[in-house]
Amino acid sequence: MVKVGIVGASGYTGGELLRLLLLHPEVEITHATSREYADEYVFRVHPNLRGLSNLRFERPNLEVLVKDCELVFTATPHGVSSKLVPRLLEAGLKIVDLSADFRLKNPEDYPKWYGWNHPHPELLSEAVYGVPELHREEIRKARLVACPGCMAIAGILALAPPVKAGILDLERIVLDVKMGSSGAGIKPSRSTHHAERYGVVRPYKPAGHRHTAEVEQELKLVSNGANVRVAMSAHAVNIVRGILATCHAFLTGEVDQAKLWRIYREFYKDEPFIRMVKDRKGVCKLPDPKAVVGSNYCDVGFEIDRHAGRLVALSAIDNLLKGASGIAVQNMNLMLGFPEDLGLKQPALYPV
Amino acid sequence: MVKVGIVGASGYTGGELLRLLLLHPEVEITHATSREYADEYVFRVHPNLRGLSNLRFERPNLEVLVKDCELVFTATPHGVSSKLVPRLLEAGLKIVDLSADFRLKNPEDYPKWYGWNHPHPELLSEAVYGVPELHREEIRKARLVACPGCMAIAGILALAPPVKAGILDLERIVLDVKMGSSGAGIKPSRSTHHAERYGVVRPYKPAGHRHTAEVEQELKLVSNGANVRVAMSAHAVNIVRGILATCHAFLTGEVDQAKLWRIYREFYKDEPFIRMVKDRKGVCKLPDPKAVVGSNYCDVGFEIDRHAGRLVALSAIDNLLKGASGIAVQNMNLMLGFPEDLGLKQPALYPV
Amino acid sequence: MVKVGIVGASGYTGGELLRLLLLHPEVEITHATSREYADEYVFRVHPNLRGLSNLRFERPNLEVLVKDCELVFTATPHGVSSKLVPRLLEAGLKIVDLSADFRLKNPEDYPKWYGWNHPHPELLSEAVYGVPELHREEIRKARLVACPGCMAIAGILALAPPVKAGILDLERIVLDVKMGSSGAGIKPSRSTHHAERYGVVRPYKPAGHRHTAEVEQELKLVSNGANVRVAMSAHAVNIVRGILATCHAFLTGEVDQAKLWRIYREFYKDEPFIRMVKDRKGVCKLPDPKAVVGSNYCDVGFEIDRHAGRLVALSAIDNLLKGASGIAVQNMNLMLGFPEDLGLKQPALYPV
Amino acid sequence: MVKVGIVGASGYTGGELLRLLLLHPEVEITHATSREYADEYVFRVHPNLRGLSNLRFERPNLEVLVKDCELVFTATPHGVSSKLVPRLLEAGLKIVDLSADFRLKNPEDYPKWYGWNHPHPELLSEAVYGVPELHREEIRKARLVACPGCMAIAGILALAPPVKAGILDLERIVLDVKMGSSGAGIKPSRSTHHAERYGVVRPYKPAGHRHTAEVEQELKLVSNGANVRVAMSAHAVNIVRGILATCHAFLTGEVDQAKLWRIYREFYKDEPFIRMVKDRKGVCKLPDPKAVVGSNYCDVGFEIDRHAGRLVALSAIDNLLKGASGIAVQNMNLMLGFPEDLGLKQPALYPV
Repeated sequence: MVKVGIVGASGYTGGELLRLLLLHPEVEITHATSREYADEYVFRVHPNLRGLSNLRFERPNLEVLVKDCELVFTATPHGVSSKLVPRLLEAGLKIVDLSADFRLKNPEDYPKWYGWNHPHPELLSEAVYGVPELHREEIRKARLVACPGCMAIAGILALAPPVKAGILDLERIVLDVKMGSSGAGIKPSRSTHHAERYGVVRPYKPAGHRHTAEVEQELKLVSNGANVRVAMSAHAVNIVRGILATCHAFLTGEVDQAKLWRIYREFYKDEPFIRMVKDRKGVCKLPDPKAVVGSNYCDVGFEIDRHAGRLVALSAIDNLLKGASGIAVQNMNLMLGFPEDLGLKQPALYPV
Repeated sequence: MVKVGIVGASGYTGGELLRLLLLHPEVEITHATSREYADEYVFRVHPNLRGLSNLRFERPNLEVLVKDCELVFTATPHGVSSKLVPRLLEAGLKIVDLSADFRLKNPEDYPKWYGWNHPHPELLSEAVYGVPELHREEIRKARLVACPGCMAIAGILALAPPVKAGILDLERIVLDVKMGSSGAGIKPSRSTHHAERYGVVRPYKPAGHRHTAEVEQELKLVSNGANVRVAMSAHAVNIVRGILATCHAFLTGEVDQAKLWRIYREFYKDEPFIRMVKDRKGVCKLPDPKAVVGSNYCDVGFEIDRHAGRLVALSAIDNLLKGASGIAVQNMNLMLGFPEDLGLKQPALYPV
Repeated sequence: MVKVGIVGASGYTGGELLRLLLLHPEVEITHATSREYADEYVFRVHPNLRGLSNLRFERPNLEVLVKDCELVFTATPHGVSSKLVPRLLEAGLKIVDLSADFRLKNPEDYPKWYGWNHPHPELLSEAVYGVPELHREEIRKARLVACPGCMAIAGILALAPPVKAGILDLERIVLDVKMGSSGAGIKPSRSTHHAERYGVVRPYKPAGHRHTAEVEQELKLVSNGANVRVAMSAHAVNIVRGILATCHAFLTGEVDQAKLWRIYREFYKDEPFIRMVKDRKGVCKLPDPKAVVGSNYCDVGFEIDRHAGRLVALSAIDNLLKGASGIAVQNMNLMLGFPEDLGLKQPALYPV
Repeated sequence: MVKVGIVGASGYTGGELLRLLLLHPEVEITHATSREYADEYVFRVHPNLRGLSNLRFERPNLEVLVKDCELVFTATPHGVSSKLVPRLLEAGLKIVDLSADFRLKNPEDYPKWYGWNHPHPELLSEAVYGVPELHREEIRKARLVACPGCMAIAGILALAPPVKAGILDLERIVLDVKMGSSGAGIKPSRSTHHAERYGVVRPYKPAGHRHTAEVEQELKLVSNGANVRVAMSAHAVNIVRGILATCHAFLTGEVDQAKLWRIYREFYKDEPFIRMVKDRKGVCKLPDPKAVVGSNYCDVGFEIDRHAGRLVALSAIDNLLKGASGIAVQNMNLMLGFPEDLGLKQPALYPV
C-alpha cells in the first residue's frame, strides 16, 4: 500500500479524493488536512463517507506529510499550491496538484490570466499537464502533475482530435460551457444560495475565463504550434455535478461524418475513459453530463453543420471526477505504475 | 370587450394565452378549442386556472369561431395553421398565429427548413413577423401576425442592435441556446420523462435548428440586406421555463463598452419589454431567465471579449411569454389599438 | 392613494411586498427600509423589479415612517417587531406584522416556544391573528395584525373545517410539512448552499417547530376550547417556493366523503382565496404547491383512509404569498376597506 | 462465476441490476430480457453502461434461462412474476423477485390490496421476505426471495427497533413518505412529464398505498403478533432517486434519547447497510436521501417530541438500491454464500 496524503480535503474535490482513495486497493490515506475543519470527522463534511471511515481532518503539517506520504494530492486554493508544492517536491514526494498553479507553461501567463507572478517559474517546465490522453508517458515519469481545469479538460478533449487533423479555423473557436454548482466549491455565498442559484441559466463568465489559457496552450501543442484563439463563455445551470462543453469551430474545408469519425476514433482508440457518443437511437444520442455523473468518463461527440460550415464538438464530464479528483487518481495510477483505471471503474449512476 | 378565440388551447402556450386573456380588461374569450380535451374544463389541463374560469374546451369549429370572434389566436402545430388561417382571414378575422407557418417570407425556406411546400405562399408577404421591436407599425395594421419562434426571438433581440450597427462579422454568428422543458410542449415522451429529463444538459439540436431561418431573415433585414449566417445550437437544461441565448459574434474592429451601450440603448430606448441588464452589482448582473420567469420582458446584455475579438450578446426570456403567448398578446394589443402593455405588466416571480 | 412603508424590505417577503404593492392600485410605497442594503436600488436585490421601480432602500427611520405612512408592514426578524411596533402604533399607524412577535395570545408561549419574554404582552390581546378565513371582521377593525407563520397557515386552513366539525381526535394531529428553500430567507449558509440544499428531502425540524404554538392556538379557538395537540415535523424539499401540509388526523367515528365535502364547503363557501382541490381527473387531483406558485390561493383537499381510521387533510400554498406577503396584502386590504382581493388576483404560473 | 439472468432488464431496477452485476466479481450475466427492447444494446436504454458492456436485451425465453442460469432476478411488473416464478423454481433455479407478487404471506391480502387472487398461494409461505435485517438466516436458505417494496423497506427499517421494544402505540402509526420520480418507472406519462413533474410536492397516494400491507405484516412479526395499523401517505418530490420515510408514532410512556439510542443500536449493531444518523453537527444531522444516493445504505435516525408524546423515526434510502436492486443483490449474496456486501460497497455520491 502506497501512503498518500490529501492537502485541502474538506472541499468537494477533497471529498471525492477521499471517496475514491478509501476504496482504492493499492493506497492508504495517511493524512487529510483542513484548516477549517481540523479535528473534525471527515463524515461531518462529506456525509456520504459516514460509516466508511473514521478519519479526521488534521491541520496541515509539512513535516508529518513528508514523513508519512509518498505522494500528496494538493487540493488547495490557487496561489497556495505554488508555495507548498516546491517544499514537498524537495522532500522527495510526488505531487498531484489540483490547483491552477502549475498548469501553464509560460510564466507570463500567470500575471496575464491570474494576476500574480509565479513564485517558482522553474517548476513550470517540469510540471506535466495532467491529461493522460495527451501526456501519458510524461505523467508516468513525472514528480509533479498539474491536473487540468474542469472546463479546460472538457474543451480540450472535445477539440483535440479535429485540431490535430488540421480541419478547423483555429483563430475562432467558441467554447460555450454549462456547469453545475459543485464547481463553485463548498463555500456558501449569496450567488450560490439555493433560492438564488436554483433554476438559473446564468452567464457568470461570458469572457475572460482563466481556463482559456490552458485550452489554448494544449490545443497549440496538439496542432504543432499553430496560433489558437479560444472564445470561452461559462454558464451556471441547475445541476450540482456535470459539465457540457459545446465547441463551435469553423471548418476550413469540406469534411464528412465518416472522416470525422475516423479522426476521433484514431485519436482516442484505446483510451479507457473516453466514450464516443453519437448515436441514432436512445435518449442520450450525444454527450450529456447526466450520463457520466459519478464516473470518470469523458463522453465526446460531434455534429457537422453544413449550413454554417461549422463543427459542433461536444463533451460531457463529471466536473468532480474527470474534471478534478477522478483524473487526479488516474494520474496517480500512472505515476505509481498501477493500472490506469484502478479504483475508477464505476460507471455513472443513471438516472439520478 | 373584443371577442377572441384560441385554437389549440390545451397546450402550454394555449394555457398562457388563457391566463393572460382571462385577466385582460379589454377582451373576452369566447372559444378555446382542443380536439384532445373537448368538453373538459380548462382547469383540468391548466390547474392554475381552477377557480378563475369555468370555461371548457370545445372541438374546433370554423363557423362558430367566425361568428363569435374578431380575432383568433392559432396555437396549432406547425402545418395546421397554414390550412386554417386562410379561411379565418377570408371571413374577416384578425389572426395572431403562434406556429411557424407564416414566419418565413421566402416560400422556398419551407421545403428547405420544414420539409413541406407552403400551401398559401401568397400570404407570406402579407403576414407580419410579430416582433414589435422591429415591426411595430406593420403589426398595428396587420390582419395576420406570425409570432416568432421562442429561440429565434431571443437570438434576434440580442443581436439586432450590433448587427444594425455594422460591427459584426455576419457570416459567423454562433447562437448557443439553453432552454427549459416547457418548450417541448405538453405531450409526454421518453425524452421528457422526469427521471430522464431532470438534470440534463442535453445538446438536442446542435445543428440545423429550424429557427435558424427566422433569425437569418430578420437579421438580414436589420442589416439592410447583408448576408447573415447563423450557426445555431439548442440545449435542454434543467428548468421548466426560460431561455438563455448566448450569441458569440466576432467584431470587425475595435469597439468599446460605451459605444456598445449606445448602440443598444438607441435601438431599444423606449421599448416597454426590453431591459438592458449589465450591472456591476447584485446576483443578476447579466440576463438570466430566472429574473424574467412569469414576465413578458426580454433582458438583454453583452460582454466584450478583447482576447478573442468577440462580442458576447446575451438575452433571457420566458419562452411561454415573450417567446410565445406574451408576445402574442402584445401583438394583439397593437392590432386592436390597445396600450401595448395592457395585461402584460406583471413582473417576474423571484425567486422561484 | 394610501401611503405605506415596508420595514425590512430586502428579504424575500419584503421583495414580494414590493412586487405586489408596486402594482396595487390604491397604495403608494413611500419607504422601503433595509439596514444591509441602504441606498441600494431595490432591483439589485430583487432583480424582477428592474425596470418597474427606481426605489432605493433606506435606513429605517421611525420619524420618517410616522410622517409619511398610514400603514407599515414590518417584515423584520423575530424579536425586532416587538420593539418597533409599539412605537409605530403609538404614533397612530396601522401595522401589518410579518414576524412571529404578535401571533401568540398567551404571553407564556413566548418563553416556551421562542425563548424570550415578550416586552409588550399588553398588545398580544389587541393584535389580531391575520387569517381572514377565521378573523375577517376583527382584521377590518384592527390597528395591528399579526400575519401567520407560513407553515402554520397551511396547517390551520387544512384542519379548521374538520376540527370545527368535531370529527377528529384533537390530541393526536400529525402535521407533516414540506417546504421550499425561500422559507429559509435570503441569507446564505452552508445548509442552503445550492450544492448542499439541491435534491434534499431534509427533516430539518422533526419536532418542536415554533409554528406548533400558533396552530394549536387557532385550532383550539375553532374547536371552542378543546385541548389540541399538534405533532409537527418540517422538511426541506427541492423547490424554491411552496409548502405542502399533510395533516394526518384520526377520526372519532365514521365519516363519508359527502359529509366531509359539506364540512369543507360550508366553512369556505365564499372565500376568495381557498380552492377545494379533490378531483377525479387531471394531473393535479389534490393540492400541490406547483399549482399555486405565484398566487395567493390556498388549495385544500382531503382523503379518507378507512383502513386506518384517518383523515388526510392537505393544503398547498406559495409560502411567500398566502404564507407571508400575499396574506399581508389581503389583511391590508381589509384594514383599509379595499376589496379583499385587490392586487391579488393573479393566478399561479403553470407550469414553472 | 455464477450465471445469473435478469428478466425485465430495461426498467430502472433492471438497469441498476445490470450496473451492479456487471462489476460483481462472482457472477456473470448470461441473459437480460426485455420484450420492448429485444435485440437492442442495453446501453441504448441505460446510457451509463455504454462502454461497459455490449450486452443486448433478449426476448424472455424460459428454456434458455433455465439452461444458462443458476439464479434469476425477476424485475417484472406486478402480476407477471407470480406466473413466471413457479416455472423457474420448478426447473431448479433460485429466484430473487423484485415484484410484489411474493411479499405477502396471507393470500387474502392480494385481492384486498392488489385486486387479484394469487395463482400460487402455496408459494407465499415458502417465499422469504427479503429484508436481511429481519430474515437473514431464512434468506440464506431460500429458493425464492421477495424483495420488499421501496417505501415499505424504508418504513420497516425506521420502525422495527422501537416496535420490537414495545414503546409505541401500534394502532396509530403514520408513515409519511417522500419519493423521487424514478420510483414511477421508466414509462412516460402526463404526470411524469418533466414540465408537470418538476417542482411538485404531490400527494399522489394519501391513503390506501399497497405497501401498507407489507409494513403491517413485518412490524406485526417484529412485535410478536401485535395488531399493527399503519396510516401511510406517499408524496412525489422533485428528485429522481431517493426516499425519505417520516414515521410519526405515539409513545406509550416516557422514553429518553439514551434508551432509544440503545434500542436502535442493539437492533442494528452489526448491520453492514444500516447507518444511524443523529448528529449534532454538519449539514446532514438526520437521514436524508441526498446522503445515500448511489449506495445501498439505509440511514436511520429519530427525534423525540415530548410536547406531543411522539417518536419521529426517520429513514432514507436510494429507492433503486436499498429499495430495489441493491437489496436484491444483497439477498443474492446471502443465497449464494458470498460476503453480504460483495459488489455493494460504493458509498453515496455527494453532492449530486
